[in-house]
Amino acid sequence: MNIDHVGLVTADLEAAAALYVAAFDLRVDGRETVADQGVDVLWLRGADGAAIEMLSPISEESPVARFMAKRGEGMHHLAIRVPNLTLALERCRESGLTLIDQVPQVGSGGTRVAFIHPKSAYGVLIELVEEGPEP
Amino acid sequence: MNIDHVGLVTADLEAAAALYVAAFDLRVDGRETVADQGVDVLWLRGADGAAIEMLSPISEESPVARFMAKRGEGMHHLAIRVPNLTLALERCRESGLTLIDQVPQVGSGGTRVAFIHPKSAYGVLIELVEEGPEP
Repeated sequence: MNIDHVGLVTADLEAAAALYVAAFDLRVDGRETVADQGVDVLWLRGADGAAIEMLSPISEESPVARFMAKRGEGMHHLAIRVPNLTLALERCRESGLTLIDQVPQVGSGGTRVAFIHPKSAYGVLIELVEEGPEP
Repeated sequence: MNIDHVGLVTADLEAAAALYVAAFDLRVDGRETVADQGVDVLWLRGADGAAIEMLSPISEESPVARFMAKRGEGMHHLAIRVPNLTLALERCRESGLTLIDQVPQVGSGGTRVAFIHPKSAYGVLIELVEEGPEP
């Protein structure tokens, strides 16, 4: 496994991204609107490939909007890269974790992803991301 | 830059580590007590090197205990690896970030580290970790 990315929520995607780019030597590596989830997404990447996914809600019903209303801006989820998502989900289930997604979903950039409930993982919202083919 | 590790806080270091090891194919890669910070620390690592630092307070005055009383268990900080910490701190200062540590401190495992105040970084407690010599 490896850390694929860390997700942050913010009310001001442009200002937060500009600060992180300037302070931490990152570059913007794509942006998209994920209407299903009610979020704008902006990817920041460093020279070594690890990434920060900045999220900003575009509707009050978005799960990210509810998260931010409760917890404020800051870290939102930890994404772990796995070679095989179906096997990883089976392993998580056997370990006693509660799956939000019983089967893989299509995530940002067309990756296969699934989320694990934070209540079962010591307060951490975990996203599993299946490794894609090498770019 | 790269993500060096993600720090999680938990009240039960052993149980949380056992679950993460089982569910996410990690191994325990060291533990220590950092008396200055009032925490027990346990490192989890995957095959690819990225790490999770699990923290558990050992005193009520520990900053981590105060964090947990306010926010509960979960993600605590995002650690970014930089080639030169002194230059990175200068760049952060120029970008308008508020430094908790004006000069590098000695962190877990003898690394040089410094923290940035979450109020200046959109709610994220950021740790800068200077790259050490290759192991």
